Amino acid sequence: MSDQPLAGRTVVDLTTALAGPYATLLLAGLGATVIKVENPATGGDSSRNNAPYAGGDGLSLSRQGPDDMSVSMLARGRNKLSVTLNLKDERSHRVFADLVRDADILVENYSPGVTGRLGIDYAAVHALNPRLVYTSITGFGSQGGPGSGKAMDSIIQALSGVMLTAGEPDEGPVRFGLPVGDMLAPLFAVVGTLSALMQADQSGEGQHVDVSMLGALTSLVACEPFDAFAAVGMEQRTGAMVPRLAPFGILPTADGHLALSAPTDAFAHGVLRAIGRPDLTEDTRFHTRDQRVRNADEIHALIREWTSARTTEEALRLFTAEGVPAAEVRDPRDAVRDPLVRAREEVVPVIHPVHGTVEGLATTGIPIRFSAARAGFDRPAPALGEHNDEVYRNKLGYSADDIAELAAASVI
Amino acid sequence: MSDQPLAGRTVVDLTTALAGPYATLLLAGLGATVIKVENPATGGDSSRNNAPYAGGDGLSLSRQGPDDMSVSMLARGRNKLSVTLNLKDERSHRVFADLVRDADILVENYSPGVTGRLGIDYAAVHALNPRLVYTSITGFGSQGGPGSGKAMDSIIQALSGVMLTAGEPDEGPVRFGLPVGDMLAPLFAVVGTLSALMQADQSGEGQHVDVSMLGALTSLVACEPFDAFAAVGMEQRTGAMVPRLAPFGILPTADGHLALSAPTDAFAHGVLRAIGRPDLTEDTRFHTRDQRVRNADEIHALIREWTSARTTEEALRLFTAEGVPAAEVRDPRDAVRDPLVRAREEVVPVIHPVHGTVEGLATTGIPIRFSAARAGFDRPAPALGEHNDEVYRNKLGYSADDIAELAAASVI
Repeated sequence: MSDQPLAGRTVVDLTTALAGPYATLLLAGLGATVIKVENPATGGDSSRNNAPYAGGDGLSLSRQGPDDMSVSMLARGRNKLSVTLNLKDERSHRVFADLVRDADILVENYSPGVTGRLGIDYAAVHALNPRLVYTSITGFGSQGGPGSGKAMDSIIQALSGVMLTAGEPDEGPVRFGLPVGDMLAPLFAVVGTLSALMQADQSGEGQHVDVSMLGALTSLVACEPFDAFAAVGMEQRTGAMVPRLAPFGILPTADGHLALSAPTDAFAHGVLRAIGRPDLTEDTRFHTRDQRVRNADEIHALIREWTSARTTEEALRLFTAEGVPAAEVRDPRDAVRDPLVRAREEVVPVIHPVHGTVEGLATTGIPIRFSAARAGFDRPAPALGEHNDEVYRNKLGYSADDIAELAAASVI
Repeated sequence: MSDQPLAGRTVVDLTTALAGPYATLLLAGLGATVIKVENPATGGDSSRNNAPYAGGDGLSLSRQGPDDMSVSMLARGRNKLSVTLNLKDERSHRVFADLVRDADILVENYSPGVTGRLGIDYAAVHALNPRLVYTSITGFGSQGGPGSGKAMDSIIQALSGVMLTAGEPDEGPVRFGLPVGDMLAPLFAVVGTLSALMQADQSGEGQHVDVSMLGALTSLVACEPFDAFAAVGMEQRTGAMVPRLAPFGILPTADGHLALSAPTDAFAHGVLRAIGRPDLTEDTRFHTRDQRVRNADEIHALIREWTSARTTEEALRLFTAEGVPAAEVRDPRDAVRDPLVRAREEVVPVIHPVHGTVEGLATTGIPIRFSAARAGFDRPAPALGEHNDEVYRNKLGYSADDIAELAAASVI
């Protein structure tokens, strides 16, 4: 489909779990042909065995039937072709060579050293296809990491410093429920892959793109100058409220919470009018920002008393009427139902390949709107090896006998 | 410099504050020529007036001298050329047209509707340069948003659901100190921009790329199937510990905290050996995952008692010796000093254009390593309008008189 930005580009996808598959999901949603290579000996991508599962009878904690597919795979497998190939079997080498020879991109998230042992590291693949962009996503970088070298999301969160950017100053670290340790690296990996691809389009030479989960997340943490803030006494870890921007923070309402962001005089005065205290806009405790910062606890207490006695809806209506930035703190399950986000297809329904739309379930779209291109997902996740024929026969030109022989030998 | 992935590409950068400038910072670090257009009437990008400042006497809360530059600008301005141009002045139109006529990319993060009023919206620019990729970063999308329409980071965090993915189930929402509401959209904007640029390289036609802060962050939240977890009773918001993966979570030590991630039998048994209780690996309370999940509080209490009596270093040494994934929970200020992250230039020193390296300060690098390209920053942030001559005279061919006249009229 020529109106997709990456139409005509082929990706050999050796990734499993979350970080790698999310990178190739974005490439697939942008129109690349992603060939997901899965090991038939292990049942393919480990995400196929993540609870919960969706099938004919809805959601369940364990597989109920042969059609059941993990919700992880339903999301991450979209628009990908699945082929089986056991890269640990030497007889896979010629198949692998045929796959990468005409590809534009390879993405892998093996632990460092594994691709070397399998004979499919950058040097080996570059020899087969010098034009190919070879992207690695690892915990600490291709050179390997410290300790056990295991790079689970929470390990990366801990090391990156993010866990101590949230929470009250006297409390322990905060574990994020959104796996930011896993999910930043794939975004940078896609940026790096597309950049290298543009370079290859001009030079004819591919290269190795090496992105680390720790480096990606820490680089984002480093965008906030925590050192500089500390040096001049600007406390950053202040919990729900931010005294130096008062009125600013998260406030309880009668039926939930709202976020209020009113650091300027205009916004702050709007807040005071909204809570029925226009008299306080001229008060020497609250008139200027410096005054409000000095009396932050007092102004926050006044506002909290008012919000606590009102529903979120009512409080927001009155703040909004005064032009004050404020919003409901939504549960993730409500957030993914936002009509605007749905209309823009930033979040989309989950489609089961056999049973269709999975009621009440949503997943990520491509949060980029193009005026002259299509992006997004129109094919559901594949069964393991579903596209062996399409890829091995139609793309690589293998004969039916050849394919049957590879299958009989458990190579595919 | 031909070994940079985006060498030869020119970006007209109309952004201010954080989300937009971070997008163009990434493009600059990848080798694009970024021309930052700043309004001389307002003193340029608002980030120039963010405390703290760095100068000859180090860091301070307010400007101490004419050389002082905000830490925000020192970070976000790197590798960008600064020109002044007052887009509200009609006489700026021909200058703007000259700037975009040969550019490859334009990035803007005005509120919806502003570019239309200024006569520089996508339609207007497309008419001047049909090949150009025009990227907009807004709070809710180019069509505009709800409420006050103001899209501060905390407003986006609140609406996206992230604030309720962290924290204990009986506590209020958690405000992240890392501005994820601001910082995801630029990453998707760069992905979209590069994708559209590749399409334009083939078709000769640019397009509008429209990324929303709310959509970008919500799409990431939607990668975790909170609906599905809830439907099968898998609680996601469990605070520091995750009972369904026990042993898993954040544990106090004698001098800090560590993250432990040991959901498999092998890892869990390693934990029990590390804490000197190899006998418990065969215990029917802790042998299998199901048993550990049922007795999560008990196994977590056992481990917590042990970690609390040991330094982080000692506990990690013993966990690592058993191959168990565990890591120190680091403060952001320690995290950005990680020698590996520094060696990979994922975090880099801050350089002041006059006073050189700012002692003790670090900022984001480009967290992508290319084997055959250079990425990163070799030029410090510019003063306001520092490159007027370089751009207006050398690139656009304006005469000295012409430039003097524009300056005298306060157009530049």
